[in-house]
Amino acid sequence: MNILEERIRKDGIINDNQVLKVDSFLNHQMDVALFKQMGEEWKRRFADVPITKILTIEASGIGIACIVSECFNVPVVFAKKSRTINIEGDMYTAQVESFTHKCTNQIMVSKKFLGPEDHILIIDDFLANGCALQGLISVVSQAHATLEGIGIAIEKGFQNGGQIIRNLGYRLESLAIIESMDGATGQITFRKQHHTAPQK
Amino acid sequence: MNILEERIRKDGIINDNQVLKVDSFLNHQMDVALFKQMGEEWKRRFADVPITKILTIEASGIGIACIVSECFNVPVVFAKKSRTINIEGDMYTAQVESFTHKCTNQIMVSKKFLGPEDHILIIDDFLANGCALQGLISVVSQAHATLEGIGIAIEKGFQNGGQIIRNLGYRLESLAIIESMDGATGQITFRKQHHTAPQK
Repeated sequence: MNILEERIRKDGIINDNQVLKVDSFLNHQMDVALFKQMGEEWKRRFADVPITKILTIEASGIGIACIVSECFNVPVVFAKKSRTINIEGDMYTAQVESFTHKCTNQIMVSKKFLGPEDHILIIDDFLANGCALQGLISVVSQAHATLEGIGIAIEKGFQNGGQIIRNLGYRLESLAIIESMDGATGQITFRKQHHTAPQK
Repeated sequence: MNILEERIRKDGIINDNQVLKVDSFLNHQMDVALFKQMGEEWKRRFADVPITKILTIEASGIGIACIVSECFNVPVVFAKKSRTINIEGDMYTAQVESFTHKCTNQIMVSKKFLGPEDHILIIDDFLANGCALQGLISVVSQAHATLEGIGIAIEKGFQNGGQIIRNLGYRLESLAIIESMDGATGQITFRKQHHTAPQK
């Protein structure tokens, strides 16, 4: 079991709506020392590819991406969310439908900060149905940049977002993949991964 | 001149609406190595106070706060913005009026993550009229935590947000205070500060 899986088991809470809450260390209060260990693990998994920039999306992806970027020694760009159509022509944009929030957001990245010369690692905290991630992939594609890989902290393996991304041939490394969880017992089952995770 | 002032002079752009754009290194693309140097400067300025937690607000404050937190070795909590009234009773909330965006946001912090035992350093990227900052101060006050200080990257000294905060007796350390800027010439004048900034 890797360090993130251990932490989810210790501090994750499954609430009444069968939602896993990790707000004590990941997406409200943030354990930056944990983020650094996650960064080192991604650095190990993506050691064979050249990364020039990390791309993430506001808001909770930003903290993880910044700490992870220290392991890769590259800048971070975060996609901005907006409910309004942006009329500036100097932006890559994508429509992102959120099933959770039942709304459509536009995401935007300035053309100044992504181009054909870039080798991108996408970093985000959660992957469920994958809508936000699909938007980020679209932005990388619009920029004619090379998408070297995708690092996700927690993938909900019982939703199909991860499978779609892997079917499309992208290299996706989720540190913790939840196969199932049971709010009544608090039981969380992780998908077994072939990676040899560093010992604590 | 400190490292942030130098960077603003080099890469900051004053656009047609007299707005300083620093999106190439601060709030869209993020130069994490610069953030680390800013963190070391704040650590120097706040060396005499005990900090247990850093508080910031989504979105662009999060990256700076996370890197700065490594210098203080403490967790980060970020306030979430919402346009809707949150009915959960386990949140500290404050209303924040944005003059720029002509709307009112609610900001929220879970009561689980701030309490009377905490000594808080607030970190944010910009201070202009100070509305977001006032909301964060209100949250710290509701939690009966101790506000040890406020670290701002760029203060617009020609707006009154900083003066109000200093008048209220808070310890505010802005790394770059802009006295004036001229879109026609690109000239930026910084307020002279008494701190001895580390040399490059």
